[in-house]
Amino acid sequence: MPQNGIESVTVRVPMNIALVKYWGKRDEKLILPLNDSISLTVDKLTAETTVRMIPGVGKNTVEINGKQVELNSNKRYETVFEEALRLQRKRKDHSDSNGNQSVFYHFEVISKTNFPVAAGLASSAAGFAAIALGIQRLLNLDDVQANRLARIGSGSACRSMFGGLVHWKKGEKEDGSDCVAVKTDESNWTDLYCIILVFNDGRKKVGSSEGMKRTRETSTLLKYRIESIVPKRIEQIKEAYSNRNFETLAHVIMADSNQFHAVCLDSVPPIRYLNDASWQLIEIIEKFNENETRAAYTFDAGPNACVIVQKKDAKSLIYSLLQSIEIPSEDLKSAEEELKESFEFSTETPKSTVCSKLVISPMGGGPQD
Amino acid sequence: MPQNGIESVTVRVPMNIALVKYWGKRDEKLILPLNDSISLTVDKLTAETTVRMIPGVGKNTVEINGKQVELNSNKRYETVFEEALRLQRKRKDHSDSNGNQSVFYHFEVISKTNFPVAAGLASSAAGFAAIALGIQRLLNLDDVQANRLARIGSGSACRSMFGGLVHWKKGEKEDGSDCVAVKTDESNWTDLYCIILVFNDGRKKVGSSEGMKRTRETSTLLKYRIESIVPKRIEQIKEAYSNRNFETLAHVIMADSNQFHAVCLDSVPPIRYLNDASWQLIEIIEKFNENETRAAYTFDAGPNACVIVQKKDAKSLIYSLLQSIEIPSEDLKSAEEELKESFEFSTETPKSTVCSKLVISPMGGGPQD
Repeated sequence: MPQNGIESVTVRVPMNIALVKYWGKRDEKLILPLNDSISLTVDKLTAETTVRMIPGVGKNTVEINGKQVELNSNKRYETVFEEALRLQRKRKDHSDSNGNQSVFYHFEVISKTNFPVAAGLASSAAGFAAIALGIQRLLNLDDVQANRLARIGSGSACRSMFGGLVHWKKGEKEDGSDCVAVKTDESNWTDLYCIILVFNDGRKKVGSSEGMKRTRETSTLLKYRIESIVPKRIEQIKEAYSNRNFETLAHVIMADSNQFHAVCLDSVPPIRYLNDASWQLIEIIEKFNENETRAAYTFDAGPNACVIVQKKDAKSLIYSLLQSIEIPSEDLKSAEEELKESFEFSTETPKSTVCSKLVISPMGGGPQD
Repeated sequence: MPQNGIESVTVRVPMNIALVKYWGKRDEKLILPLNDSISLTVDKLTAETTVRMIPGVGKNTVEINGKQVELNSNKRYETVFEEALRLQRKRKDHSDSNGNQSVFYHFEVISKTNFPVAAGLASSAAGFAAIALGIQRLLNLDDVQANRLARIGSGSACRSMFGGLVHWKKGEKEDGSDCVAVKTDESNWTDLYCIILVFNDGRKKVGSSEGMKRTRETSTLLKYRIESIVPKRIEQIKEAYSNRNFETLAHVIMADSNQFHAVCLDSVPPIRYLNDASWQLIEIIEKFNENETRAAYTFDAGPNACVIVQKKDAKSLIYSLLQSIEIPSEDLKSAEEELKESFEFSTETPKSTVCSKLVISPMGGGPQD
């Protein structure tokens, strides 16, 4: 507990990309998933968050990228702060005998993402993970408590609490106490990179929460996927990661991304996240993998692609992309810096598909204080 | 058997649309499906076929829409003619004791479809059904024999051999003898119409045979669909059809079309048949059905839509389509004639989606001599 009544902590937390997808909740309030999922962080897309603890039960505040968040219209923050208060009360009950003062705290959160929220890259996972980590440090919470704090903010946020391959276990218990994310492998595969392509899309998107609910209620394939397919894939990913077997890793990643979109299509009414640009990317990767599987695409609840490669193949992948996709030249320059390679590209031939942003990043890094 | 050594028969056979989709073969050679399917014919899209029987085992010929078919490069015809010869031989064995002469016949087929083959509307089902029906008449085959003849030409052709709701049973036997299509309901639902919209598409399509094979070999959802979903849906369609329950019929039709495309997406590499125009049509129908389910979309292995409605709702459906889809005015005129209704439409506002052909047709009519 702080001595001076005020303490603050700053953490930087990366977003994460699921290799086996989370889709469907078994408990809407506690955000308990219907199935396990497994993910890697994207080191360069982070939320940097300062959490300040202020004595007294007061009004919590959240500022994201310079804008105050209206907490009344965004209940997820309230849920997190209520849980933080509950944890303080619980500790007070236990520590009364030590003669501690019964002081409670509220929080001030100031968060900055290093990528535009409007780009369509899920930033809430990194943001809530950062808040949870901050509160964990300030209140000395254990990992299970911090995990829960992140999860009730934004389900997949609990997968951003560690580096390396992270396995979010659905758990069995009603109270969610066995629903936690864990780091699966002590040694990180530092050679994995991802290339994220943002494809803008005029269509109104079905939000993840709404989409998950619709699929759970109407898809006749989801239950089978959850019970019979996902558990095997989680094991395959863990084994492939630990053996540094890129080919198997890639096959499972692509198959699971496609199956996630298949159960979306099997919902009533059907949900569509992939657009023409996404499908063009799929075709480019199929061609790129013709002789040897060197890249894996994966798509979340939107058209943007995340392509996973080993560092050695990143440059030739970018060349393949450049054949038919227009990429902002400043992003190519950043890619050159990141890979310490130089690309020769002509911007003369106009391309049918335009990517509004490309980010290249190593994967698997953890949060930083 | 013909007395004069030459005999010919002319039949007109409609194409059919599956309400529960056939996707995947349990036997590639005999074209035995992995699952039951159920369909309705489209009365106005037909193949008119003359089959002439010529004495002697000779060179069979097939002409479609004025063009001679190169039989060497299209083995499916050969398979059908070989089966026809086998049936003649078999009968000869049995009839020798009657003192019949052992004369065999070969065939000349002249077929005309009343819609452009290039329009992307599956014409082969109607064509092979017509050939099978012609040969059935000429050789006095029973329904099971004729069914097999159609099926080994083009699987779903066996569903065009009858009017009304037709159930193609997958059967269990290895020789396919219990794999037959049957008419399920004595009384036809004459009020059902379909509106077919052809959306041209520059993409190279994965053919049905190749697609089915890929899905069977790689989709981890297909088996579950086949075993646990399809049988229920077949029963639901039969019951809804017999009770004239349009709402249930429509829900099952749409869910099954979407699930068929979902297992395509679940294949490796993923198969995509729906394009932006198809998805726009889906959204139009969702909106059209907002208060009451009055229309059902279904898509085969391509972007073209088939929308099923009761006759009373056909006009207002066409109005809904006209809001955002450009439809050739000559097709609207034919629709006016067919429905004995007149449409008011302006062709002034250009539409984002263009349909190159619209056909409106009653459903459920059978083949005609």
